[in-house]
Amino acid sequence: MSESPDPAPRPDDGAAPVDPVYRDAVVDLLGVISYGEITAFERLADDSKLAPTMQDKVALATMAATELGKVGRLHQRISELGGDPFAAMAPFRVAIDSFHQHTAPSDWLEGLVKAFVGDGLANDFYREIAAFLDPGTRDLVLASLDDDGGHAAFVVERVREGIATDPRHGGRLALWGRRLMGEALTQAQRVAADRDSLTALLTGGVDRPGLDLAALGRMFTRLTERHAERMSELGLDS
Amino acid sequence: MSESPDPAPRPDDGAAPVDPVYRDAVVDLLGVISYGEITAFERLADDSKLAPTMQDKVALATMAATELGKVGRLHQRISELGGDPFAAMAPFRVAIDSFHQHTAPSDWLEGLVKAFVGDGLANDFYREIAAFLDPGTRDLVLASLDDDGGHAAFVVERVREGIATDPRHGGRLALWGRRLMGEALTQAQRVAADRDSLTALLTGGVDRPGLDLAALGRMFTRLTERHAERMSELGLDS
Repeated sequence: MSESPDPAPRPDDGAAPVDPVYRDAVVDLLGVISYGEITAFERLADDSKLAPTMQDKVALATMAATELGKVGRLHQRISELGGDPFAAMAPFRVAIDSFHQHTAPSDWLEGLVKAFVGDGLANDFYREIAAFLDPGTRDLVLASLDDDGGHAAFVVERVREGIATDPRHGGRLALWGRRLMGEALTQAQRVAADRDSLTALLTGGVDRPGLDLAALGRMFTRLTERHAERMSELGLDS
Repeated sequence: MSESPDPAPRPDDGAAPVDPVYRDAVVDLLGVISYGEITAFERLADDSKLAPTMQDKVALATMAATELGKVGRLHQRISELGGDPFAAMAPFRVAIDSFHQHTAPSDWLEGLVKAFVGDGLANDFYREIAAFLDPGTRDLVLASLDDDGGHAAFVVERVREGIATDPRHGGRLALWGRRLMGEALTQAQRVAADRDSLTALLTGGVDRPGLDLAALGRMFTRLTERHAERMSELGLDS
């Protein structure tokens, strides 16, 4: 397509986006995903200390390492787009750090539920956004969400075992799941209010399709429904 | 070589070792290396919290993830040899945990020196042992020692910068390096006393060549010399 003189963004040709507003939004998106993965690494590495067995510890540590392993490609893409990976992450530190400060697990099971529910929610949200990206960025974002190691299955099994051993865990962990969802929404709201570029990815632009308010509402309904499905997979009420 | 009826170990044909004493020793060796890498992951992930910048934090977290990424192959090989990876690591937990308890870095620079000096020392030791292994195991052990990401260069640069900024760090970190070496020798001695199989890898067996006492002495001299070289690479007296 290099013969085309058209300078407008072409979200379908897989090339790097040329519209600077769109490019900034993509850099923002890759920045927030990267920082999310770095902090996920830190939390999982920390939570692995709570593991009751060496096997469980290695399983959680492996999840941590997997998260961090995705950061390199995201940072590389930010650089290709002319951004600085660390500058791109900076605007999201307060929101993501606050999320983690307000949701520090007090034991092994809370850590597992957080890994499963928090990761799932973030992945669902990035998948929704991915529909509005050029194919190259979309593939990169979707690849960064892959659960390569069957980690989710490990978490589901361990949480269900924990509840079977002591059913009182069920009520406490159900509350914990609601708190995770509430904190995630609070911080997402904060990011949306601060970063017009990211919201513009969803709501569209002059040359780009987007969601109207009704469609945004349906998206949040989908996210909430999937959260409820995940909770029920863990054997918890949502 | 399947036509040969000879049941003795053939350290040069690359097949799985058949001598049960040798096989147990290899399982021990892979167990201690695995557990060392798991704890290295934990320490580096912890130490990354001390990083002065987000860039430094990501660099150390990446080193942590790299260490953990090597564990899977080692565990797989232990299973292939008929061992249980977690049982194989168990005998080394006390020694390695004690090493880390006695060498908890009090700041970022101590953490970096420990990553460089401790890792280097362990790698040198495993490389010495590798010379006495069948080729399949040797390749696996050597691959697990590779510094794929140029992490060592990062550490050297940061420690030298730290000393240039405040030369008083030099004396303190030189002492720290000696302490690391002393603790490593103490724990290695403990392992050698407890695990005959590992020492037998070095000292040889009926069908296997090994080191006599003089050669063992020369090996320790080489390890000490390389430690001194690493310290001087960091700009520190050893």
